[in-house]
Amino acid sequence: MNIELINTGSELMLGRVLNTHQQWICRRLADLGYVVTRQITVPDSSHEIQQAVREALARADLVITTGGLGPTSDDLTRDLISELLGRKLIEDPLALANVKRFFALRKRPMPARTRVQALVPEGAIVLHNRNGTAPGLALEVKPNAFRQGGKVSWLVMLPGPPRELQSMFLDQVVPQIREWFPLESPFICHTLRTTGLGESLVEEKIGDPLRTLADAGLEIGYCARTGEVDVRLSARGTGAEKIVAEAEHIVRRLIGDHIFGAGDDQLEAVVVRLLSERKETLALAESCTGGYLANRITNVPGASAVLLAGLVTYSNEAKQTFLGVRADSLAAHGAVSEPVAREMAEGGRRRTGADYALAITGIAGPGGGAPDKPVGTVFIALAGQGHTFVLNPINQFDRQTFKYVTSQQALELLRRTLLKSGRVRQEGMTNEE
Amino acid sequence: MNIELINTGSELMLGRVLNTHQQWICRRLADLGYVVTRQITVPDSSHEIQQAVREALARADLVITTGGLGPTSDDLTRDLISELLGRKLIEDPLALANVKRFFALRKRPMPARTRVQALVPEGAIVLHNRNGTAPGLALEVKPNAFRQGGKVSWLVMLPGPPRELQSMFLDQVVPQIREWFPLESPFICHTLRTTGLGESLVEEKIGDPLRTLADAGLEIGYCARTGEVDVRLSARGTGAEKIVAEAEHIVRRLIGDHIFGAGDDQLEAVVVRLLSERKETLALAESCTGGYLANRITNVPGASAVLLAGLVTYSNEAKQTFLGVRADSLAAHGAVSEPVAREMAEGGRRRTGADYALAITGIAGPGGGAPDKPVGTVFIALAGQGHTFVLNPINQFDRQTFKYVTSQQALELLRRTLLKSGRVRQEGMTNEE
Repeated sequence: MNIELINTGSELMLGRVLNTHQQWICRRLADLGYVVTRQITVPDSSHEIQQAVREALARADLVITTGGLGPTSDDLTRDLISELLGRKLIEDPLALANVKRFFALRKRPMPARTRVQALVPEGAIVLHNRNGTAPGLALEVKPNAFRQGGKVSWLVMLPGPPRELQSMFLDQVVPQIREWFPLESPFICHTLRTTGLGESLVEEKIGDPLRTLADAGLEIGYCARTGEVDVRLSARGTGAEKIVAEAEHIVRRLIGDHIFGAGDDQLEAVVVRLLSERKETLALAESCTGGYLANRITNVPGASAVLLAGLVTYSNEAKQTFLGVRADSLAAHGAVSEPVAREMAEGGRRRTGADYALAITGIAGPGGGAPDKPVGTVFIALAGQGHTFVLNPINQFDRQTFKYVTSQQALELLRRTLLKSGRVRQEGMTNEE
Repeated sequence: MNIELINTGSELMLGRVLNTHQQWICRRLADLGYVVTRQITVPDSSHEIQQAVREALARADLVITTGGLGPTSDDLTRDLISELLGRKLIEDPLALANVKRFFALRKRPMPARTRVQALVPEGAIVLHNRNGTAPGLALEVKPNAFRQGGKVSWLVMLPGPPRELQSMFLDQVVPQIREWFPLESPFICHTLRTTGLGESLVEEKIGDPLRTLADAGLEIGYCARTGEVDVRLSARGTGAEKIVAEAEHIVRRLIGDHIFGAGDDQLEAVVVRLLSERKETLALAESCTGGYLANRITNVPGASAVLLAGLVTYSNEAKQTFLGVRADSLAAHGAVSEPVAREMAEGGRRRTGADYALAITGIAGPGGGAPDKPVGTVFIALAGQGHTFVLNPINQFDRQTFKYVTSQQALELLRRTLLKSGRVRQEGMTNEE
């Protein structure tokens, strides 16, 4: 089955905005067992849009377009596709009601030109837009000049704003796709998210042990980003569920310590969840990561129940004032040192009363390196009840990747400590019984 | 002139990674006066890559591919394109030396399979990779079966890693493109970056006054993202420079207060620069933005000269402990209130000794709203010498957009205050002379 995605928008061709639709739609389809075979971006120009749609319909079973359904003069997709397919545009009463409702709710008059959004090509399935005004549209395209071989294609047009596109896609397009193109056999896909091992090391550890399952139909995909590697396990057919479950079991046995989640899980959300479950609290003391770690944690809804304070102590004075780091330690070891990291964490914990405090001090670069402490030198300290643990990685990256990788190591240190302390506590309870 | 961009990578089709090359390359070309007419993404599969390249060569004067030049089995681009164009692959001594040098510098043995990266199609221009091992390649494609009309095309292959691609593109590909495809007439493009006005308001204020210049050839583009609007002024031809300069003059006169920079300027970098120039320092006290503002500022190299500390005081206790906010104020007005924002800023300034302190308190949502303080309520306070100024916007967005917009408002408040204080100081100096 061929699926093609066409993103329209002159602002994309000028590089003014990032195309996030591609990743989002491709990801959702892949996890359902459908793989996009080609993605195309064209500007808001009649010739380019019609040519791209015509070519895609000649190749693909399903063509999805994004953008160009709004009320302004550069929103051309609806008109151009109707023209290309020889369909009349008719006003759809439900779509019109939705446009009217949208403005009524906001107590604003409905501009005359917005009415155009209620026009739909004859015979189209109208996809309700609950977050905006332009409906999505789905059309069955009979075999014709575009496509030889007597196969029907489906064409789906989605509005451009992500909030409108995403809910429409999940609620209405996914069920349609499953109905139009039922998978010949079950598809199972499970992604495990790991951190702390490079891609080649992950592959080395699990590649051979999974070989028998791979021969039986398991597909293994690795996706490496700096600081994390996703392992994607998938299979098709009647035995798919069993194959993927066995593969997951093997992977967890071999590198389970490094697996922090599955699917779309984020490490910061996992850590906030673990702390919330334990009703424990956290304080942060950051130097070189400059608030990046606090920002990641506070991106998680509910973080306020867990995070008491984050102290970005860039200057030595701030380290002394807010964390009680000793002037002696700074003078003797420098701000980027194990003793200072330790004092930052312990001071942060003491002054906030948090159960745990994470401290980070290091040299992000580009400047500030020295022969004994090169750019990339980092100390990460975690202070908990009764003990403080310090990591000392060397993270040589550009400034923003440095922040990401370092915060990832800090979160992972905390995640593992929380899991271990959970285990100890449970064991302790068992012993006391 | 037609330019097409082909991004290869199965991980793109699976939605595992975001295609940032598209925006980056399109943006660089657009600002030079070259517009990409089509962008295509295909998986690492022989059939798809060859088909996409063949079709692109049939339409375009310049085809740029990214990815697939590395040493692993799914790096197919070099081989497939050589095959498609009937070129032999020959080992290039300089490219080989670069691969060897790369491993020697890192004191690692050179794996045998990496040698394949020194193979280049006969007649190719070899583009040196100073950040990696795979060289880029440029090929002149004579009119042939792919393209009717007797026109020559150029095909450029770039490595996938952004660090390798970007420096190669700027240093080596841009000069080549200018040589291969000299612009028929000068192209001038200037982008002004604004904040604090919506897109329609910007258009309303400058659209009419620019009409005469638009008739003379000025092109005006608006690119709106939440919290900022870019105004792109461009023109072609002999009068282009004058037209764009006049347009910029008009725009600056009408909405100059809202213009924080040009081109790729970032608001946080502008603020760090202004503070550095004045040798003044900053402290931050964030509640609802959770370190996002500190993170933006510390993304700017050299921020450590300016930022003394950032205090993420999520809990009421932290606001009292670290900023000296009074329990009375918290009890009487709540944490999200003008008096508390004011005390946070003044406390942050006092305790760090900074010249300025910015404080933010608000309700990011999704939870936590109340009838008199709905989700999105924010107080932003800026404490300077002798006075504290407070803004009270309502920012109703999802959690991450909320953080961005709020930090944007805070930075803009600081930027304007710095500019005003600069003016006052200069005036003061003049009076004293």
